[in-house]
Amino acid sequence: MYIWKYSTPSSNSPWHWGFVGVYRNGGFIFTLSKSKSETKKKFINLQLNSWIRRGTRVVFIDFSLYNANVNLFCIIRLVAEFPATGGILTSWQFYSVKLLRYVSSYDYFIACCEITFFILFIVFTIQEGIKIKEFKSAYFKSIWNWLELLLLVLYFVAIFFNSYCKIQIFLLLESLLKSTEKYSDYYFLAYWHIFYNNVIAITIFFAWIKIFKFISFNNTMSQLSSTLSRCIKDIVGFAIMFFIILFAYAQLGFLVFGSQVDDFSTFQNSIFAQFRIVLGDFNFAAIQQDNPVLGPIYFITFIFFVFFVLLNIFLAIINYTYSEVKADYSIGRRPDFELGKMIKKCEKQRFG
Amino acid sequence: MYIWKYSTPSSNSPWHWGFVGVYRNGGFIFTLSKSKSETKKKFINLQLNSWIRRGTRVVFIDFSLYNANVNLFCIIRLVAEFPATGGILTSWQFYSVKLLRYVSSYDYFIACCEITFFILFIVFTIQEGIKIKEFKSAYFKSIWNWLELLLLVLYFVAIFFNSYCKIQIFLLLESLLKSTEKYSDYYFLAYWHIFYNNVIAITIFFAWIKIFKFISFNNTMSQLSSTLSRCIKDIVGFAIMFFIILFAYAQLGFLVFGSQVDDFSTFQNSIFAQFRIVLGDFNFAAIQQDNPVLGPIYFITFIFFVFFVLLNIFLAIINYTYSEVKADYSIGRRPDFELGKMIKKCEKQRFG
Amino acid sequence: MYIWKYSTPSSNSPWHWGFVGVYRNGGFIFTLSKSKSETKKKFINLQLNSWIRRGTRVVFIDFSLYNANVNLFCIIRLVAEFPATGGILTSWQFYSVKLLRYVSSYDYFIACCEITFFILFIVFTIQEGIKIKEFKSAYFKSIWNWLELLLLVLYFVAIFFNSYCKIQIFLLLESLLKSTEKYSDYYFLAYWHIFYNNVIAITIFFAWIKIFKFISFNNTMSQLSSTLSRCIKDIVGFAIMFFIILFAYAQLGFLVFGSQVDDFSTFQNSIFAQFRIVLGDFNFAAIQQDNPVLGPIYFITFIFFVFFVLLNIFLAIINYTYSEVKADYSIGRRPDFELGKMIKKCEKQRFG
Amino acid sequence: MYIWKYSTPSSNSPWHWGFVGVYRNGGFIFTLSKSKSETKKKFINLQLNSWIRRGTRVVFIDFSLYNANVNLFCIIRLVAEFPATGGILTSWQFYSVKLLRYVSSYDYFIACCEITFFILFIVFTIQEGIKIKEFKSAYFKSIWNWLELLLLVLYFVAIFFNSYCKIQIFLLLESLLKSTEKYSDYYFLAYWHIFYNNVIAITIFFAWIKIFKFISFNNTMSQLSSTLSRCIKDIVGFAIMFFIILFAYAQLGFLVFGSQVDDFSTFQNSIFAQFRIVLGDFNFAAIQQDNPVLGPIYFITFIFFVFFVLLNIFLAIINYTYSEVKADYSIGRRPDFELGKMIKKCEKQRFG
Repeated sequence: MYIWKYSTPSSNSPWHWGFVGVYRNGGFIFTLSKSKSETKKKFINLQLNSWIRRGTRVVFIDFSLYNANVNLFCIIRLVAEFPATGGILTSWQFYSVKLLRYVSSYDYFIACCEITFFILFIVFTIQEGIKIKEFKSAYFKSIWNWLELLLLVLYFVAIFFNSYCKIQIFLLLESLLKSTEKYSDYYFLAYWHIFYNNVIAITIFFAWIKIFKFISFNNTMSQLSSTLSRCIKDIVGFAIMFFIILFAYAQLGFLVFGSQVDDFSTFQNSIFAQFRIVLGDFNFAAIQQDNPVLGPIYFITFIFFVFFVLLNIFLAIINYTYSEVKADYSIGRRPDFELGKMIKKCEKQRFG
Repeated sequence: MYIWKYSTPSSNSPWHWGFVGVYRNGGFIFTLSKSKSETKKKFINLQLNSWIRRGTRVVFIDFSLYNANVNLFCIIRLVAEFPATGGILTSWQFYSVKLLRYVSSYDYFIACCEITFFILFIVFTIQEGIKIKEFKSAYFKSIWNWLELLLLVLYFVAIFFNSYCKIQIFLLLESLLKSTEKYSDYYFLAYWHIFYNNVIAITIFFAWIKIFKFISFNNTMSQLSSTLSRCIKDIVGFAIMFFIILFAYAQLGFLVFGSQVDDFSTFQNSIFAQFRIVLGDFNFAAIQQDNPVLGPIYFITFIFFVFFVLLNIFLAIINYTYSEVKADYSIGRRPDFELGKMIKKCEKQRFG
Repeated sequence: MYIWKYSTPSSNSPWHWGFVGVYRNGGFIFTLSKSKSETKKKFINLQLNSWIRRGTRVVFIDFSLYNANVNLFCIIRLVAEFPATGGILTSWQFYSVKLLRYVSSYDYFIACCEITFFILFIVFTIQEGIKIKEFKSAYFKSIWNWLELLLLVLYFVAIFFNSYCKIQIFLLLESLLKSTEKYSDYYFLAYWHIFYNNVIAITIFFAWIKIFKFISFNNTMSQLSSTLSRCIKDIVGFAIMFFIILFAYAQLGFLVFGSQVDDFSTFQNSIFAQFRIVLGDFNFAAIQQDNPVLGPIYFITFIFFVFFVLLNIFLAIINYTYSEVKADYSIGRRPDFELGKMIKKCEKQRFG
Repeated sequence: MYIWKYSTPSSNSPWHWGFVGVYRNGGFIFTLSKSKSETKKKFINLQLNSWIRRGTRVVFIDFSLYNANVNLFCIIRLVAEFPATGGILTSWQFYSVKLLRYVSSYDYFIACCEITFFILFIVFTIQEGIKIKEFKSAYFKSIWNWLELLLLVLYFVAIFFNSYCKIQIFLLLESLLKSTEKYSDYYFLAYWHIFYNNVIAITIFFAWIKIFKFISFNNTMSQLSSTLSRCIKDIVGFAIMFFIILFAYAQLGFLVFGSQVDDFSTFQNSIFAQFRIVLGDFNFAAIQQDNPVLGPIYFITFIFFVFFVLLNIFLAIINYTYSEVKADYSIGRRPDFELGKMIKKCEKQRFG
């Protein structure tokens, strides 16, 4: 007679990415008590009935804390994985999220900002819709319009997630807070909150980039941005060549050092390790100890080809393009801002 | 019946910047005794009367030591802050300052230098005043004159602080040294001493920069300095673009990694962290562990755009300007030193 | 009466490279038991009969483990060397190799790939043989053909080692697994497996490089690759000069810091240390402590000459060549791809 | 009645550079016994008679070890300094030197090399003397001849120190080895040996540089070396400007962070710290903690001006010079090797 029972994974819950594998949220769930002595008894019971067996792949310990002083929930997940090679791999997740919004007066200010943002989002969407109607396919030729559309999509995703999170909190939090004996799963709330946060971060990143649209009208600035836009083709072309060399070295590093040096344990990590070598953060001793012949050869040739030679080609491309742009400007030949003029005219009409 | 009483903060005392907040110097002050047993008793008393309570935000332990061998006061402040999230955050300040000046014969030599400096300051101030009268608005067109004025202001601030500190020490130190039972607050003396020290540091920094004024008359040197001055507009223009990208990435890093990675805990720290990434001092593992998807994307794209592409534009600007300057010099076209000639002529009149 | 006897080294076994010397696999071999108590008794016996004596130069502890879950053998060698200066230097080797191939269905898929690879290898060999016959000495003028030949040689070595390992495992593993009391030497199997792995790594590295052959037909790409190929002579020429300076500094560093700073303990390590200095991974404090005069002079002049001056010449070479190539392309003068055209025509004939 | 007595410092012994001061070798010298129990008694005696007093500034513990296996003397000095601020600063010196030369047959081979070197030194000295007589003042116009003379001086110093050390060892070692009870001071032998070693290191460094003389006759090489020699004037000119900025920042760093951050504890260390910042080895947290306002400003502006702007001027100079040299070579204008031709002719006469 077991005191726990198997629960099937729910479909919409987030997966957990562990060191060894990816886990869904189903399994043999067991709720501990709030009283220490009762929990101790339960632990003894679990041990006697061998809750953790040979077949156990992972144990999750989930609990949530609430600090009323700073109005923050801390959702904690402690994970112990049992790999096939034996031993235990432990990891943790600490999510500090503000689930109870709109408590202080500052929160209400934030709420106002959110409403304003939503109104502006609708205005911008309509504006861009009008623009698309007006310019048709010409609209999609400007990189700035693409950025505008990307931002609108991100705005929408951010607003959607914000609303979703709030509605879920509104619906669930009361019931979750009521049931003090039953475990209340705040984990998925924290997960979506983190996800929403990341969307916000990416949105603001592209919003920063949008500033370039407005500073390009200055002469110096337009020189620089036209340098960047003119060399983009060569940069991308060379980036492909650069990454082929980088991948070749990453593959070499992964196969030779992968089984011994942690930094090269996967192909992906090898690529990151090589970027870190270029910046000066590496462990040469580990490479040398693992393979005293291929290690230094790998290292020296990598530095020579990538750091001494290939990186300089980026520079040569930019240098050449910049002097070309400077020469063009000095004889009065400037890039045609046909679409730019149209947009300006259009904006003048709208606001003037 | 409490053995301590609340003292209101004095208006002119320096604020203390802690981890959690900014504190003024008022509060429940309690003076410990010089005898160990008496202090022990006082501590017990404090504990019994719960000096540290729920409402306590910060505890300062201030004391001063004097080492007669090296004639240095060491003013020590140990701080324990109690944040709303619980726990204690400790920090410290150790200021070693020389409050008793003019003891050894070397100190008297320093005093002579200080007097000479004061006389020279007055001479320079008068000189610059004459120059301003003579050249009027033309005076303010040269960057060197602005530097001269800045230095005069810094000289004045340094002299003022030096005098202020010395007068304060002269007035207070005797009384402070007399009262052995009462706590003598040397902290504000140390604080102003450190402040004075920083002013001196900045003054000397700009005095070093002034050397450039005198080495620019050589041909090679004038080529190099005219390269720098000619590309300054483009450099500043591009620096703005560079910092927009940097801020965009810093915002992204702050929002995504801020709650988990210490280096990105504030927007300001994110900017510093990114400069450190460019130089090769970073913790990739922490970024990757926090967000296995956005972390590496952030890192790789940051390296690619900032380290591989944007940094090279600084180089392209300087490279282009240098070759232009070289070409100008080779055909005999040199920058017009109209004001320079005037100043030279003027100096010839004065000294010759 | 000894319980161990001297065995002469077998000729085909791999040598062991230790810190102090190179060791062959002969010596006084002693097999421990699988039972703990028996092994303890044997150890006491060894100690009583002083197995480790003044003349002992090195002790190897070899054993193998098999984890059935992941089908991996772990061949472990613990080494304790006794240098002439006294003390013990310990090191270790952990080789995790998959000796039992073709167990799961995925393994059979791998086997199919291996067979396909073998067939393709024969096809490619015949193709290249035909090409050599056709173009004769013209064939050897293209760098790509040399790469092709190098790859064929590496393919052959990889296939040979793979077959050799498999045959050895097939022949020996059964007998090794049977004898549970006698020590089964898997070490040489692991050694060849690692060797095979390194050959594979190098092969794939060059296979990646071969991609360049196919991307050079694009215009941007051909500009970049012709930049690289055109500046290769200058780069190599300058690399010689660069390495002379580097060797001069390495020799200086080795002689001055060699006896105290670990990074400069050999001439070879000095070279690696200098590459690491260029990338920003070094221990300045150790250099300065060892020699407070020559240390900083070495460091500052090295940074100045190598990092500030010499590294920039690589850049100047690439920059100059790139602008030359760009100028050539803009006036329509392109590199003659005579052989390239021939190969293309030839391939068209074959595949079309 | 003391069991030790004061000995005046000998004039020719090397000084010891400690953390706090510079010490000569005189003082209250006390010799410990070879027997452990006797030494213990002596220590008790020292303590009872308070050998270490308030006035003691430094304690040296000198002893020597000889390892017959590797024929190396290890001369050890343990130092404990008592600074005026209290506490003890400990340091150590371990010199491993080979004092007994010419033991094994390899040593005799080295001796033959040394004799050959001495003969060649005389030959070279005579050669250069003849050259000076022949070319007179023209001789001193070539940088290579200056290098030749520098090398001859270094050869002479190296030979002198080698002979001096050997004679000293020959004279003293026997007597030193005989007196087993009295302490034999090998320290000065080790000191001169290290000095000799450093001279050798510098000699070989310049001998490496001399290789450039012989590789400049190749076309590519001569382009590169003429690039270096042509831009040397600009590089030096700019290096002066660069170091002024560097010194300005170093002074700033020293004054602001000097009392708290170890890396900036002296002006000299500040310069080294700044070179390390450029390479990516620094402790930003320490700077920021010491001064949360000036620290980041110092750091960001330093990176911006030095890493982003000034370092690139080195590049611009080299880049410009290289393209100039390339242009000169392409139209057949080469540097006049008038003196070079003369030397070649001269050498042809001598050897042909």
